[in-house]
Amino acid sequence: MKLASLKHGRDGRLVVVSRDLTRATDAFPVVSTLQAALDDWERLHPRLVDLAEQLEHGSVPSFRFHEHDCASPLPRAYQWADGSAYVNHVALVRQARGAEMMPSFWTDPLMYQGGSDTFLGPRDPITLPDEAHGIDFEGEVAVITGDVPMGVTPHEARGLIRLVMIANDVSLRNLIASELAKGFGFFQSKPSTAFSPVAVTPDELGAAWVEGKLHLPLLAYFNGEQFGRPQAGVDMTFDFGTLIAHAAKTRALTAGTIIGSGTVSNRDADGGPGRPIAEGGLGYVCIAEMRTVETIRDGAPRTPFMRFGDAVRIEMKDAGGHSIFGAIDQIVRKHHD
Amino acid sequence: MKLASLKHGRDGRLVVVSRDLTRATDAFPVVSTLQAALDDWERLHPRLVDLAEQLEHGSVPSFRFHEHDCASPLPRAYQWADGSAYVNHVALVRQARGAEMMPSFWTDPLMYQGGSDTFLGPRDPITLPDEAHGIDFEGEVAVITGDVPMGVTPHEARGLIRLVMIANDVSLRNLIASELAKGFGFFQSKPSTAFSPVAVTPDELGAAWVEGKLHLPLLAYFNGEQFGRPQAGVDMTFDFGTLIAHAAKTRALTAGTIIGSGTVSNRDADGGPGRPIAEGGLGYVCIAEMRTVETIRDGAPRTPFMRFGDAVRIEMKDAGGHSIFGAIDQIVRKHHD
Repeated sequence: MKLASLKHGRDGRLVVVSRDLTRATDAFPVVSTLQAALDDWERLHPRLVDLAEQLEHGSVPSFRFHEHDCASPLPRAYQWADGSAYVNHVALVRQARGAEMMPSFWTDPLMYQGGSDTFLGPRDPITLPDEAHGIDFEGEVAVITGDVPMGVTPHEARGLIRLVMIANDVSLRNLIASELAKGFGFFQSKPSTAFSPVAVTPDELGAAWVEGKLHLPLLAYFNGEQFGRPQAGVDMTFDFGTLIAHAAKTRALTAGTIIGSGTVSNRDADGGPGRPIAEGGLGYVCIAEMRTVETIRDGAPRTPFMRFGDAVRIEMKDAGGHSIFGAIDQIVRKHHD
Repeated sequence: MKLASLKHGRDGRLVVVSRDLTRATDAFPVVSTLQAALDDWERLHPRLVDLAEQLEHGSVPSFRFHEHDCASPLPRAYQWADGSAYVNHVALVRQARGAEMMPSFWTDPLMYQGGSDTFLGPRDPITLPDEAHGIDFEGEVAVITGDVPMGVTPHEARGLIRLVMIANDVSLRNLIASELAKGFGFFQSKPSTAFSPVAVTPDELGAAWVEGKLHLPLLAYFNGEQFGRPQAGVDMTFDFGTLIAHAAKTRALTAGTIIGSGTVSNRDADGGPGRPIAEGGLGYVCIAEMRTVETIRDGAPRTPFMRFGDAVRIEMKDAGGHSIFGAIDQIVRKHHD
């Protein structure tokens, strides 16, 4: 089943979307928002599945689905906790800013509490005050959970994953070092995140969803050029069950909690950082990794961070080449007070 | 006006509470939850004020108000961002764990993104897996904002404060050092927070509310003994307007965002750390400060962190000795999977 929230009020208008992303039907007869659906999932999920089947069969009124009408599936959420499951990414960006890479990062998930109150829609501009902050995109996989009890095991947690999405975890690279040095984690360096137009149930991913990992390439395009296509199922040190269990160690998580994978990142076959697309590598789904690789090779980064007017597109396709989640496609714009 | 959310479903049942906290009336004829009220505050606030006046005059049906029936005013919120406005507290706890105290902490607010999806009710037990985590309470003042645009000034932000509460920002001290060393801020070391039974509009605080600071003592009791009564209006380096502006520097904040002051903490008259209550000082609203002072004086802490069965009570009284927000009153219990 595929779900989306069309822009409407603060929490969107829930629609069921056809598998091929061409048509949608209002979920209103069942429930009006995605958060409300998640709040009562056991009861409402079968009814939404029925609606999805009727939509595929053409036995329910439907309308043309436009990704640009979408808010993020949860336009605002009660929690957005972002892991760093691709430890390769962490090693690279830490190397770039001369920060310590602790060996425990390979066994104990890094996770930060993100702002969840004002997500951007997948086609909304990324409006920010200052190019000098070092605007970067980060392509990620993310899941939405049901209610998660404190102390859940990774195995149990996998069974509490309700929906899967992709994300653009916008980052302000030039604010990160000084903010993390203060010791309290990210805040101003992580502006509003955007999620894909559509969230899908894990069964919709078929054989690509294995034990809390999504085995498909995540595609990123920067100003129309392919920038990265790393395999999201490869080099993911912590599966989503492990990330959820980490988040729930000392508190329960409410239904509608979003857990992110961190920036998808693959090592090269020789164990080193991956090569750019132009050199036949899998590239990167954030600019920071490209800059780190440039720095390692040439002594200095060459690729600038995003400037006002720059565009990023992030999506994921199934084995048949069909977009699964729809595309995040955003332009960076200057914020005027 | 005073508002509370009685325990009911996920988001509570909004009631208007009498000034003396003895009676309440259902807000349902106006709006059913506090989040819904905040989402449409301009329109609904005057109607809630009318209801509060009718309640005071006895011209509306009412019932006895019991603080123990309350959830936190927002049982779950879209954002909980906690500042460290009492830099004295930061200096003390960092001294205790040998962490660096950056001079910028006096000019650039420290703030962490907290988990906002599962707040504890003010009389709920604090259920945690392990005493060895170093369970501590933290008494704070907190505000709930309306919609805050990106780039708001501190002065403008003060005008966007809708409600004021007090908080118990439960902390797991023995998890903090290793978690902050990872560089991504608090996560497991900050379990669910509790807020006071009642949230009040700033006008309800009268002369005690001055330019985004609350000039009254915050009272903490540990196992029935007074533990602290620091003045919340004193040594607050950053007023709430400044904290909100800090949070909104690179993103907008949605209505219902909760901003915390950090642990209220006063220096002694000579500029040193405050003295314990038993020595005629104002004491502390967290155990960590007591332990730091003990360590400074005697070389080692004497007061243990909270054990299962221990109780903490946090409240604030007006100049006439009447409880403003009702009391947070919680017992620590062991969590069983």
